[in-house]
Amino acid sequence: MATRSVARSPNEYGVDEYGLAMTADADGTYGYLGPAGTFAEAALLHWLAEQPSRAKPRAFASVLAALEAVHSGEIQGAMVPLENSIEGSVSATLDALATGPELSILAEEQVDVTFSLLAPKGVALADVAVVTTHPHAEAQCRPWLAENLPDAQYTVAPSTAAAAATVAADSDRPDAKKNSAAIAAPLAGQVYGLTELAANIAGSVAQTRFVLVTRPAAPPAATGADKTTVVLFMGEDHPGALLEILSEFAVRGVNLSRIESRPTGGGLGDYFFSVDIEGHIDDARVGEALMGLRRVCAAVRYLGSYPRLDQMAPRLRPGVSDEEFRDAQAWLTRIREGRP
Amino acid sequence: MATRSVARSPNEYGVDEYGLAMTADADGTYGYLGPAGTFAEAALLHWLAEQPSRAKPRAFASVLAALEAVHSGEIQGAMVPLENSIEGSVSATLDALATGPELSILAEEQVDVTFSLLAPKGVALADVAVVTTHPHAEAQCRPWLAENLPDAQYTVAPSTAAAAATVAADSDRPDAKKNSAAIAAPLAGQVYGLTELAANIAGSVAQTRFVLVTRPAAPPAATGADKTTVVLFMGEDHPGALLEILSEFAVRGVNLSRIESRPTGGGLGDYFFSVDIEGHIDDARVGEALMGLRRVCAAVRYLGSYPRLDQMAPRLRPGVSDEEFRDAQAWLTRIREGRP
Amino acid sequence: MATRSVARSPNEYGVDEYGLAMTADADGTYGYLGPAGTFAEAALLHWLAEQPSRAKPRAFASVLAALEAVHSGEIQGAMVPLENSIEGSVSATLDALATGPELSILAEEQVDVTFSLLAPKGVALADVAVVTTHPHAEAQCRPWLAENLPDAQYTVAPSTAAAAATVAADSDRPDAKKNSAAIAAPLAGQVYGLTELAANIAGSVAQTRFVLVTRPAAPPAATGADKTTVVLFMGEDHPGALLEILSEFAVRGVNLSRIESRPTGGGLGDYFFSVDIEGHIDDARVGEALMGLRRVCAAVRYLGSYPRLDQMAPRLRPGVSDEEFRDAQAWLTRIREGRP
Amino acid sequence: MATRSVARSPNEYGVDEYGLAMTADADGTYGYLGPAGTFAEAALLHWLAEQPSRAKPRAFASVLAALEAVHSGEIQGAMVPLENSIEGSVSATLDALATGPELSILAEEQVDVTFSLLAPKGVALADVAVVTTHPHAEAQCRPWLAENLPDAQYTVAPSTAAAAATVAADSDRPDAKKNSAAIAAPLAGQVYGLTELAANIAGSVAQTRFVLVTRPAAPPAATGADKTTVVLFMGEDHPGALLEILSEFAVRGVNLSRIESRPTGGGLGDYFFSVDIEGHIDDARVGEALMGLRRVCAAVRYLGSYPRLDQMAPRLRPGVSDEEFRDAQAWLTRIREGRP
Repeated sequence: MATRSVARSPNEYGVDEYGLAMTADADGTYGYLGPAGTFAEAALLHWLAEQPSRAKPRAFASVLAALEAVHSGEIQGAMVPLENSIEGSVSATLDALATGPELSILAEEQVDVTFSLLAPKGVALADVAVVTTHPHAEAQCRPWLAENLPDAQYTVAPSTAAAAATVAADSDRPDAKKNSAAIAAPLAGQVYGLTELAANIAGSVAQTRFVLVTRPAAPPAATGADKTTVVLFMGEDHPGALLEILSEFAVRGVNLSRIESRPTGGGLGDYFFSVDIEGHIDDARVGEALMGLRRVCAAVRYLGSYPRLDQMAPRLRPGVSDEEFRDAQAWLTRIREGRP
Repeated sequence: MATRSVARSPNEYGVDEYGLAMTADADGTYGYLGPAGTFAEAALLHWLAEQPSRAKPRAFASVLAALEAVHSGEIQGAMVPLENSIEGSVSATLDALATGPELSILAEEQVDVTFSLLAPKGVALADVAVVTTHPHAEAQCRPWLAENLPDAQYTVAPSTAAAAATVAADSDRPDAKKNSAAIAAPLAGQVYGLTELAANIAGSVAQTRFVLVTRPAAPPAATGADKTTVVLFMGEDHPGALLEILSEFAVRGVNLSRIESRPTGGGLGDYFFSVDIEGHIDDARVGEALMGLRRVCAAVRYLGSYPRLDQMAPRLRPGVSDEEFRDAQAWLTRIREGRP
Repeated sequence: MATRSVARSPNEYGVDEYGLAMTADADGTYGYLGPAGTFAEAALLHWLAEQPSRAKPRAFASVLAALEAVHSGEIQGAMVPLENSIEGSVSATLDALATGPELSILAEEQVDVTFSLLAPKGVALADVAVVTTHPHAEAQCRPWLAENLPDAQYTVAPSTAAAAATVAADSDRPDAKKNSAAIAAPLAGQVYGLTELAANIAGSVAQTRFVLVTRPAAPPAATGADKTTVVLFMGEDHPGALLEILSEFAVRGVNLSRIESRPTGGGLGDYFFSVDIEGHIDDARVGEALMGLRRVCAAVRYLGSYPRLDQMAPRLRPGVSDEEFRDAQAWLTRIREGRP
Repeated sequence: MATRSVARSPNEYGVDEYGLAMTADADGTYGYLGPAGTFAEAALLHWLAEQPSRAKPRAFASVLAALEAVHSGEIQGAMVPLENSIEGSVSATLDALATGPELSILAEEQVDVTFSLLAPKGVALADVAVVTTHPHAEAQCRPWLAENLPDAQYTVAPSTAAAAATVAADSDRPDAKKNSAAIAAPLAGQVYGLTELAANIAGSVAQTRFVLVTRPAAPPAATGADKTTVVLFMGEDHPGALLEILSEFAVRGVNLSRIESRPTGGGLGDYFFSVDIEGHIDDARVGEALMGLRRVCAAVRYLGSYPRLDQMAPRLRPGVSDEEFRDAQAWLTRIREGRP
């Protein structure tokens, strides 16, 4: 049985700042869900490459740990997974952002989840008798395994990167059997010094969407192709509540690109909604919709506005552009003063 | 056959300012749909009694004529009928306010429409062989007539007040038969010197609602129990247009007390809507709803906000009070600046 | 002043079946709002021309009188006006169909309202000093009159056909002044033997829509391009009632081509709605919408389904065709029986 | 690291039918998410106690395995978790029911999730140095552990029952250290012969809701207090899709008690909805709403109607009872036949 305490050993994962008990001086450090070699690290590295500063990545044992380090100021930000095209939303992230300390989303990243079969040097495909990986990865690669390694035994790892780390560590033992391989991201092969025996072995293509989270901050300026993420807490469990919420968006021509219900923990049937909006908080239609939600919901938590990765500007219906909002406001001011 | 030109003779109706060709000096003069003795005059007199100034009423031959005199500045205002509980909306008023020159509604009045049988001195009920009135009044009094004057002949008059005026004028002729009576408002009896042979002879109780119209002006201050009247022109004839309009109101918790469709004159199926809103233009929810309509309609004409005659404050659902709008606006400003 | 009783004199209007007191034997007789020469007669004649039988038209003094004759079985049907592109809906018809005895609409007709200046033989345009017509016609022809007959006096008639009849009758008197003309439909000139001095003198083009009403009957078969007319009575005056009604239509993809509110006579703010639906009662989507309205309204009166004059089939959104309704019903039956 | 293949050894978990490779003759056997001692077993035992037959429970390694055994006919049914008041919906169950072979939900169960600290005989609270459990349980019991076992090391188990099984199995080894305890359901203590050192050690009270799944079957008869579970696949990613779906329910007065979005696996932004409806498929309003959804969704999968555990009948708004649907249908039939 895997012990998560093992994960706290710096030797195993090659990272020395894994965990909560770190001391500060985190200037220019960004966290991710570790260990090294995960898709989260890939997402963070991709994002950091576009930043001006020379910031360093740091692995954390859990989404919660990374976000707590952001909140405490220990690190400047963290790249955490929000949803996966096959597994769905990442509850730990949604719940922490919704009910934990106030934080802000500054950016989004998306990573194609591809799996490779990785083994220590000297292990060939024909040698593999034991395959280690996370259950989600095993499920996605099952057809490939059935065809290529029908007799291999499968063992569970808490993450695909941990699987790679374990296979690498085990191969260093004197009594190593040289028959193990891990299913993990290609990056994990580089991190843990494993050889890629096969690539793209998952039956379907999946994507994981990540968000870069910081301490509360003003949003980056609107680009014309932005997303806004909010959390909506229902006032009371009345049947039409969701319809009401959607009407607040619809009447202002605000489209949603994601809506997810999550239990508040207060009992079955007590929900909040995590929502991605097409648009920026500075867009007039988004601002008015959020004010409407603020009035009809028990609470609204604004998590941030940030550029869309796909840079697609929303197609607006007539009547909801910033200019039309401004004109309407000017008209209202005039008629209130008797100057129609 | 009645000639409307006769109506321009001051002798017949006892009013010397009936018509459009009046010279100015209209300081403190208010018009109504004449001739004298109509329910419109009753409504205007009621309203004037509550005003500080010593303004004078003046009869006009038509709603249009009265409103044109307001627009030209010839008179200060006009009391015109908007709807009747039996006949429905008054198209001439709705159309003139919607598509004529810009004017403002400052107040509303409501009058119980009661009919009396009025005759010259010396004519008793048993003498009446001819009854003159407007067709609407005849329809409402038909049961009473069938029971009390089954053999009387009915002649048409263009208004109930005109009926009273005609009966009074005819009785002054040398060859007068002394067998005519008019069905009209009690006030008409006083105006034209007729005796009330019977009161409340209409089978059902009706009300007419009037509005006091002036040149464009800032609305009177909100009282907490107000109405707002607007005209909404559809952009194009698409099926969901009315549903869209109602959603703009509903999502801000704004109730309607009247909605009436009217042809624009551009062809069958081309409508505008005349709408009464519960609330004042200075109410935040009303202002936001009107801005929304301004954006989705081809045009919105604001006609005015004014105190409700019944002084009933609207029952608001949670989330739409001015204070909740203010709080939501303050919240939006905070989060836009990164201060959640 | 015109006496309506005069209208019952056959001599004046040249029609011998005008009024309510007719004896029966009405086989193959259809009524219209008279007198002869109105646009209503034109509409009826147009409709009769397409019927196999040799039915006769008959003028009635009012919409109500015509509909009562239909109800009593005295005549087989009546052509009555429903709406005009300038004047709006015809309240008398809407109210009679909504609250009078149950009747059915079998067909619709539409007539272009064009006005001619009609005069007795021997009267030239330059001779005309008095113009007689209905006020609506006078309003529409006012610009033409101002330009062509600026000095003519205007006298009111209860209908344009009555104006033509009066002008014709007056011209037969020995002391006739030979200076009168009527504004009326071209057909009225033929009926009353008048000469057309000018055609198309109205400033704008108007249409009047008529419906052919019979005793309650099954609707004609669906053609694929039909209309359905219903009357909806509100349960109680609650603000969202109209929104609810529109939702019943919208959710089944049923479009409205006309919606009109009318007072029930029970007091200001107490309305019913007269509605034209795109579709036939036998269309599945229309049937389901009407059942929904039957459940949420205080009452629904179905007036009929009939072919659209313009033969335009409605554009349906996906999911609301008869076939899709049938498939959904078959599916529901299967899953209720455990055969998914 | 835990190997899931070990789970197929009957010795470890004390169950001999764990896995997929079972031969048939499964008359009267019901599966649950094993191993023995889980809350799923508790839910199944509770349900079986109310059934007339003497059916046997059987543990399965995964939700998927249990449902596949139902589908193949190997077992009669399976009790699987649907949602947890803290963790949210159980994706594996939602996805298997939505996209796997067609199955039916026959009943629901709900279990209070309470955790006990369980240890082999002879181990006292003061002896415990290692605590084994599932991460969710560890998270919920963290405050209790911090206070009562601050120095204990935590090791991960794939389920709380597996934790209990492991602790029990390890204690039988000759070299057992006698310092391990498991956090698991009280039932697991009985199953694996462990002693309860402490009860109710989770900081918050959670509930898990289970459903009993069988091969496709007709639903049990309506009780008046029922639920219906359906899966709705969106036709295309258009912004108003969810609003449309909710309108189909709202217009028939059908309330939802749960709605959950899940990715279809076709890419980010491609969702289906898993929905619980208040009512039974035989309720007229539910049937009509489902037919509406069948028409507007790409696909609808009906999973079943079953009695609500809380036996609460829904509060219906006027107009949506079975009787009102029947009356409306009878009325429609009449008017279609011309008998209003």
